Amino acid sequence: MKSNPASNHVYFNDGFKCSTISINANLAEVNDSTTNSVGSQGSKEFILTEDGKKVKPSMSTGECTRNWLKECSRRTFNRKTLHKRLPIVQWLPRYNSEDAVGDLVAGITVGLTVIPQALAYAGIAGLPVAYGLYASFLGCFVYIFLGSCKDVPMGPSAIVALLTYQAAQGSWQKSVLLCLLCGIVELLMGLFGLGFLIDFVSGPVSSGFTSAVSLIILTSQIQSVLGITAKGNTFVEIWTQVFQNIKHTQAGDTVLGLTCIVVLLLMRSLSSCRIGPKEEAEWSPFQRVVNKILWIVGTARNAILVVVCCLMSYLLHSEEHGTPFRVVGDIPPGLPSIKLPPTSLSANETSNGVAQGFVEMVHSMGSGLIVVPLISLMENIAICKAFANGKPVDASQELIAIGTANIFNSFVQGFPGTGALSRGAVNNASGVRTPLSNIYSGALVMIALVFLTPYFYFIPRPTLAAIIISAVVFMVEVRVVKPMWRSKKSDLVPGVGTFVACLVLPLEWGILIGVALNVIFILYHAARPKLTTELLITSHMGIEYMMITPDRCLIFPSVDYVRNLVNKQSMRQNVPVVIDASHVYGADFTTATVIDSLISDFNQRGQLLFFYNLKPSICAIFEQVSAAQFVVYYQEEQLDELLKERQYGQKRLETA
Amino acid sequence: MKSNPASNHVYFNDGFKCSTISINANLAEVNDSTTNSVGSQGSKEFILTEDGKKVKPSMSTGECTRNWLKECSRRTFNRKTLHKRLPIVQWLPRYNSEDAVGDLVAGITVGLTVIPQALAYAGIAGLPVAYGLYASFLGCFVYIFLGSCKDVPMGPSAIVALLTYQAAQGSWQKSVLLCLLCGIVELLMGLFGLGFLIDFVSGPVSSGFTSAVSLIILTSQIQSVLGITAKGNTFVEIWTQVFQNIKHTQAGDTVLGLTCIVVLLLMRSLSSCRIGPKEEAEWSPFQRVVNKILWIVGTARNAILVVVCCLMSYLLHSEEHGTPFRVVGDIPPGLPSIKLPPTSLSANETSNGVAQGFVEMVHSMGSGLIVVPLISLMENIAICKAFANGKPVDASQELIAIGTANIFNSFVQGFPGTGALSRGAVNNASGVRTPLSNIYSGALVMIALVFLTPYFYFIPRPTLAAIIISAVVFMVEVRVVKPMWRSKKSDLVPGVGTFVACLVLPLEWGILIGVALNVIFILYHAARPKLTTELLITSHMGIEYMMITPDRCLIFPSVDYVRNLVNKQSMRQNVPVVIDASHVYGADFTTATVIDSLISDFNQRGQLLFFYNLKPSICAIFEQVSAAQFVVYYQEEQLDELLKERQYGQKRLETA
Repeated sequence: MKSNPASNHVYFNDGFKCSTISINANLAEVNDSTTNSVGSQGSKEFILTEDGKKVKPSMSTGECTRNWLKECSRRTFNRKTLHKRLPIVQWLPRYNSEDAVGDLVAGITVGLTVIPQALAYAGIAGLPVAYGLYASFLGCFVYIFLGSCKDVPMGPSAIVALLTYQAAQGSWQKSVLLCLLCGIVELLMGLFGLGFLIDFVSGPVSSGFTSAVSLIILTSQIQSVLGITAKGNTFVEIWTQVFQNIKHTQAGDTVLGLTCIVVLLLMRSLSSCRIGPKEEAEWSPFQRVVNKILWIVGTARNAILVVVCCLMSYLLHSEEHGTPFRVVGDIPPGLPSIKLPPTSLSANETSNGVAQGFVEMVHSMGSGLIVVPLISLMENIAICKAFANGKPVDASQELIAIGTANIFNSFVQGFPGTGALSRGAVNNASGVRTPLSNIYSGALVMIALVFLTPYFYFIPRPTLAAIIISAVVFMVEVRVVKPMWRSKKSDLVPGVGTFVACLVLPLEWGILIGVALNVIFILYHAARPKLTTELLITSHMGIEYMMITPDRCLIFPSVDYVRNLVNKQSMRQNVPVVIDASHVYGADFTTATVIDSLISDFNQRGQLLFFYNLKPSICAIFEQVSAAQFVVYYQEEQLDELLKERQYGQKRLETA
Repeated sequence: MKSNPASNHVYFNDGFKCSTISINANLAEVNDSTTNSVGSQGSKEFILTEDGKKVKPSMSTGECTRNWLKECSRRTFNRKTLHKRLPIVQWLPRYNSEDAVGDLVAGITVGLTVIPQALAYAGIAGLPVAYGLYASFLGCFVYIFLGSCKDVPMGPSAIVALLTYQAAQGSWQKSVLLCLLCGIVELLMGLFGLGFLIDFVSGPVSSGFTSAVSLIILTSQIQSVLGITAKGNTFVEIWTQVFQNIKHTQAGDTVLGLTCIVVLLLMRSLSSCRIGPKEEAEWSPFQRVVNKILWIVGTARNAILVVVCCLMSYLLHSEEHGTPFRVVGDIPPGLPSIKLPPTSLSANETSNGVAQGFVEMVHSMGSGLIVVPLISLMENIAICKAFANGKPVDASQELIAIGTANIFNSFVQGFPGTGALSRGAVNNASGVRTPLSNIYSGALVMIALVFLTPYFYFIPRPTLAAIIISAVVFMVEVRVVKPMWRSKKSDLVPGVGTFVACLVLPLEWGILIGVALNVIFILYHAARPKLTTELLITSHMGIEYMMITPDRCLIFPSVDYVRNLVNKQSMRQNVPVVIDASHVYGADFTTATVIDSLISDFNQRGQLLFFYNLKPSICAIFEQVSAAQFVVYYQEEQLDELLKERQYGQKRLETA
């Protein structure tokens, strides 16, 4: 029935315990196919590369120490590690004019996007708008040196801003301290190679989380559009408040806000509009220019809208009546001062009027210290993966980069940031070539801080809310439901579970519930393997036997289940039983003890039990535990011989 | 290189999306081998058996309802369900005289063991000795009807007594209430089929837990042997107290206690001593009688020692000086009254003098309400498995049986019990045949309560402590360390972790840590599959290609890792890549999206990517998500054709 044609080396042990060494020697070739095989396993990716050369002996102690130090420094600073940990040295020497043009265009486009977004996202974090700009320039410069992904625009993001609000409750001191602490956590996670943790956030959970967060952000901006006040922490609370206060709706804010949303959505569709033929090569020069303008207007829509609304606001403004809608108000002009993040709050800086020390501040942030770094990483890696074109993404290096960037940002009063998905897409579409594009967007933000803050006074708040709403509304991932439903319905459970949990519970609970649901699926997979039972006939002697094939590895949660099923199946038919272990790639001590009792079950019944194609490494585990003898064979033909030796056929005839 | 000789039906899709239905139809035969195949999957074991027949249509509503009720009752009370849920109906009709003799002998032997053990284990639970006896009879009678395992002697066990002490802090009212609540939890778990939960307690964790518990129990009895007082909750605390109070050691208690331990260990070895030849058949009648006596003395050693010590204590007793060692003291004579478990504590019944209501009582038990049932089940199932001879063990039915037994016990002031492992071994060795043996041990306990309580006054406490110590000392599983070390060293981590954690932390934390360590291993397994890479040559045209074989299923935590590795390997050699999915038994939505991006990675590089032996069910998942086209083939020879169609060989020549 089954054969492994490559196994020219025959090994089967009959009656005596299987000899591991012999099997190993023979089967190493079969399994690994000698020359060209590469077994890749485990967390190699996260170990700093070592050269492996040893210091030669027979030297004086001084020489020895010197050599050892040299060796250490050589290892730490060797070329491969340097390239990995300081990616700028990889691309800077090869930087050319084409790269420069691409980065300049992309950097300026992203800069025009980041300024209005920074002002708006500061609102999500519950902070004065200036803090959004403070968080948007220094990190960019840091990322140039440490970032491994060209498309990542370091800066504030809507999701991380919301998490910042939940952890720091809108206090700028806490937000800045959170930025420092999150940076440190990210840096440490990167250095310890914990980037793999986000592997455990599956696609459905991540979609559910993003969708819920988008809805929460959208909800939080409704009040700005309507010109009302609605306080609350969860989705339901805010909506209740909105409906309670809807009678206070301000006409000016509402009209401007809704108009801005409609205009933004229309402008958004411009960026994908084209005139003329489909193929770019066939465009006339006129078509080329028009299409370029369409794309620029579509991409820089936020900046354009802000400028227009700001101008309008300025013109409508009168000394007596102010503006017909709420505006951003005074922004302190100039760059922020460089100083340590605040480590304590005086009595008049807290909401309850009680001074807080460092410990109380950190304690009040709670799980935010873990959740903010993990979600920052998740969003950042999402950009890297989206545009990596198959190149591996180094999650640990990204953690180091955004961690260091956040640490630096906290010294200029920034709040936590990461690579924001929306600007990442703009960056890529603008033809970014290297992380150097960050320098232009950072510089634009600095220029805005130095020269433009007086004009920002007139930016209408409903316009900023409209920018956020028209951005996040596309982050509600309704479109993944259909393929998920058609491909694997069970994946909807963690997805929808996360979505609902994030809406009604604190966000960190929501994502934890999603991950827990996923882990339960994995555990169920591990605990309930599928067994296929076939009644077969041996090739030569035509003896009937039962072949039982488990489809995955046998580890502890599944072994009693397998033992029960194997016994149940084998009791039905009194024929020799063969367990086909081709798909069994691993086993543990519990498996070994249960296999031992399975063998004695069979011995007591006087039924024959063989193992087919059991990996030598697993043989070795079993033989250390099993007091009973177990028989393994690797080629189908051997079964006849094994049965013959045990005089199975004859015994059968005698009893018949 | 690899072939699947049974697949006579050829299917491969080139260029267009793979048609699931067609593959399904063709490969169903290949995978499942038509006639004799049985696919066993999932939690079938825990679903009540249904007959599957449908009610016929075309009936009046009244008729319909009647039929539906009939159907329901027939389903609930059908033969198979009845046999499963009331196991007595299986064995009682076939009960014969041989069974009766076996059960009588085993029942009396267990009865002689349970009486001293019950007195001793009450001490572990921090209760007056009488409560041990109260917990030892009614449950036995219940188990006869509901128990599915002949070897289980329902009653108090050392481990569960310790957990009871930790949850009820030595208050009899709380212990009895705990017994009721645990019974209810067990019954519900049984009815909802949650017995599988203990599958997640692996062998090493269970060994570590049992060993730690044994050491803690042993420690708690040291004070009784030395005649001192040592209060404390954890292992370390108690030993500190013991060393602090060692100067108060009572000579009488110490001498008696140590002597009892030595005598018990000697008597224990008697039960395995035999005179005469090795084969039982060759024994002379004299040898037979002597061996039988040796075995009985060895097995009933606890009862014999208690009787002897009790007698000695009575003789040494004087009105003036009392006894030279502490004795059990007054036991209320007679059977306990049948009444509801206490649901509140008056002020003078609590340690802090504040009355407690039902809610406070339940709250103070905390996680005990989950831990006691789970550990009870673990110990109980350990007996079932040890002597099941390969018959499947029905964990849910056992939960129902011990749950109901505990509910009944709580009405006669019993504390939580289960099938105790030590008596289970005695039961089996005494030749038990059915659960009816419980009737004799239960009856013996009742006789003891009615007639013997006055004599129990003189039982020395050091003797009871010696019984416990000489029982639990063999439960420290040092012997599993060596095979675990030799077979799978990584399994020592959860084992030793649980052991240490149980000693220094509360027991429920200890076992949770062990299970968590195990779950981490499973998740790591799921997240980091091993990939084997081979450079091979097609059979006909001799074209070089790369075969990448993942050894397990591709679910979300592993897919990005796999994508990175596959890309990395394939970039090294610009040859067509084949992913051998023979061992891939499952995939999810995240896999599908990542495979989709892997395919576009390859398309962008212009490298060919094929899938070999991908299960049709997984094909179906991929094709719902993948916008790109993916190519699957199922026979090695097809690769040549696929390459030919894509003019791979020619292209190669042209570029060369």
